[in-house]
Amino acid sequence: MENFTVNNPTRLVFGKGVCDQIPSHIKNYGEKALLVYGKGSIKNNGIYNEIKQQLENAGKIIFEFEGIKSNPLVSDVENAIALGIKNSVDFVIAVGGGSVIDSAKIIALCIPENHNPWQVMKFKAKPTKALPLITVLTLAATGTEMNQFSVLQNPITKEKVGFGSPLIYPTISYCDPSFTLSVSKDYTSYGIADIIAHSLEAYFGDGDAVLSDRFVVSIIREMAEAGPKLLNNLNNYLLRSRVLWASTCALNGLTFYGRKSGDWGVHDIGHVISLLYDTPHGASLSIVFPAWMKYNSEKLNAKLLWLGQEVFYVKTIEETITSFENLFTELNSPTRLSQIGISDSMKKEITDLLIKNNATGMTVKLDNNALEEIVKLM
Amino acid sequence: MENFTVNNPTRLVFGKGVCDQIPSHIKNYGEKALLVYGKGSIKNNGIYNEIKQQLENAGKIIFEFEGIKSNPLVSDVENAIALGIKNSVDFVIAVGGGSVIDSAKIIALCIPENHNPWQVMKFKAKPTKALPLITVLTLAATGTEMNQFSVLQNPITKEKVGFGSPLIYPTISYCDPSFTLSVSKDYTSYGIADIIAHSLEAYFGDGDAVLSDRFVVSIIREMAEAGPKLLNNLNNYLLRSRVLWASTCALNGLTFYGRKSGDWGVHDIGHVISLLYDTPHGASLSIVFPAWMKYNSEKLNAKLLWLGQEVFYVKTIEETITSFENLFTELNSPTRLSQIGISDSMKKEITDLLIKNNATGMTVKLDNNALEEIVKLM
Repeated sequence: MENFTVNNPTRLVFGKGVCDQIPSHIKNYGEKALLVYGKGSIKNNGIYNEIKQQLENAGKIIFEFEGIKSNPLVSDVENAIALGIKNSVDFVIAVGGGSVIDSAKIIALCIPENHNPWQVMKFKAKPTKALPLITVLTLAATGTEMNQFSVLQNPITKEKVGFGSPLIYPTISYCDPSFTLSVSKDYTSYGIADIIAHSLEAYFGDGDAVLSDRFVVSIIREMAEAGPKLLNNLNNYLLRSRVLWASTCALNGLTFYGRKSGDWGVHDIGHVISLLYDTPHGASLSIVFPAWMKYNSEKLNAKLLWLGQEVFYVKTIEETITSFENLFTELNSPTRLSQIGISDSMKKEITDLLIKNNATGMTVKLDNNALEEIVKLM
Repeated sequence: MENFTVNNPTRLVFGKGVCDQIPSHIKNYGEKALLVYGKGSIKNNGIYNEIKQQLENAGKIIFEFEGIKSNPLVSDVENAIALGIKNSVDFVIAVGGGSVIDSAKIIALCIPENHNPWQVMKFKAKPTKALPLITVLTLAATGTEMNQFSVLQNPITKEKVGFGSPLIYPTISYCDPSFTLSVSKDYTSYGIADIIAHSLEAYFGDGDAVLSDRFVVSIIREMAEAGPKLLNNLNNYLLRSRVLWASTCALNGLTFYGRKSGDWGVHDIGHVISLLYDTPHGASLSIVFPAWMKYNSEKLNAKLLWLGQEVFYVKTIEETITSFENLFTELNSPTRLSQIGISDSMKKEITDLLIKNNATGMTVKLDNNALEEIVKLM
């Protein structure tokens, strides 16, 4: 078990109607808010109006940046930073899913010292402070609402890059499960696949951290029970709550304490698929994980056996991998590239970009041959 | 699932050698430290010298209060408050187990405004601030190192009372598993029994919080695996780490998110046994829980079945309760009053004090008849 520190500064406010607390919570964060959101779905489901009303109740002046993409682009982040600087905003409020919040983290980080966001993402610029960041979550998936990570993509360099800094923990995150009630069946599926994938990236990381392993089991079993029920009953508040809280726990540190690191090789590969085909993040991960497990099954023998036993009560590696494939299938998330229209002839393009982008994983190292074989298995 | 807020401000620093970080962490907490500890065992195992050295390295002036009892007394807390006020200490540093840290929490809370600690414990005085509190944990058990609770006893009024306030979260807690290596086999057992009991108090609380239930399962399974191994190998660092980290997770909020409350009826009863016979806290709980489960088995039918299935893979309520009895026995913690020398003729004294002290539980209400029957089953 590795040494670790628990010190997550995000205040997470969870439950029905919690956004009513926004005015009292944000009264000391200055007058000018930069409101960041996506492609407008929050205007259809009433969330935009509700949050705007809360900001107005708090007496804030609102500047808006609309149009963050679901695979978020650094160019949008650049434009939002410029808007924030021009208007001397005092804090950032993000309303949306992972892409919006990941973007807002970098926006809040770059405004005070006018940093270039891609330089920051590539660790070439080093901000020393950030604006306060308020988030209002509308999708259960990435866990970004309570962690220090952000992933953005750059279509010019064909890269999807992850960044981490204690400066980008959200200050306060509001998680109202009723704000996720209107998420489509597909995106509900991909979100749950993402939650499971995060749990697995932690589990296959480096280090002997048995209680963290058990929390991984808890989260995956929770998704295996609540996930399929939710897909048949998208309007159920309790099931939405269970998935939303699991999404936070899957990437707020809980499953990582005592490890040197996670693995993230599957995310490396998934990011490349999303870059090439704009595949939803969670869908890319449910395709990669079974192939990655099959390719690494000898190396991960003991870990796969323990996981299969604890999560699915099965006895062999084959059953473990099949159980995960069946779970993703039950969750309506793809497990093969063919299911998202990618033919065998396109696999070389994927492998080439994986090698170019250095998708090596962290704990389970992937060389060029491994990448090629994993893509073949997908 | 109930609304909740996650906002635990304690910085927990876990692992081998973490106390080396004390001087850099505490440099801004003022010059005068009140060092609080127990009956001197830390002087035998070197921890006292090590922490004193760290404080001296940080240039602090140290005032010492020695002698907190393992069932901590409010009179000691009063005397420590007086010492702290007389010397205008700037912060409190507690070195010990739950009793020392629980005492130090109230000491740090009462010094700034010279409050009477029993008035505070009974919610009759309302402090508005506290001194910074540093804790160095030497026993895996109560979880007090990362929560807002304290339990003290008053031998004059024959009460053992719990208190909670956000003002008493420790500021920084150092958890070095090697500091627990010298804990005796008995107290290691009682600590593990306490961890299991905290998990169960959460589980039997009020509210539909399935992921929190699963975290309870994770912690109990972790103790069922690591606990007996540790008792046969008390010097094993990794096993000490696993038990120490489980002790924090069992009462730092994790198993309570989404519930209205825990239950705490078993703690109510255990406190009375400790008051009367100075029984170690964990030992009292492993005696009460099986009896409490038996008495309430009809009412808790579904919860006991689910728990038995998830923790022990058993199918009936009887097997669930027997499995817990067997687990406590394997952990060397008593499950009957007779094992700690309390005869049937003394049971009336217990029941009388339970009724006098209003030991009613929170979720599973216990009337006088219930208390009498539970004591009979112990």
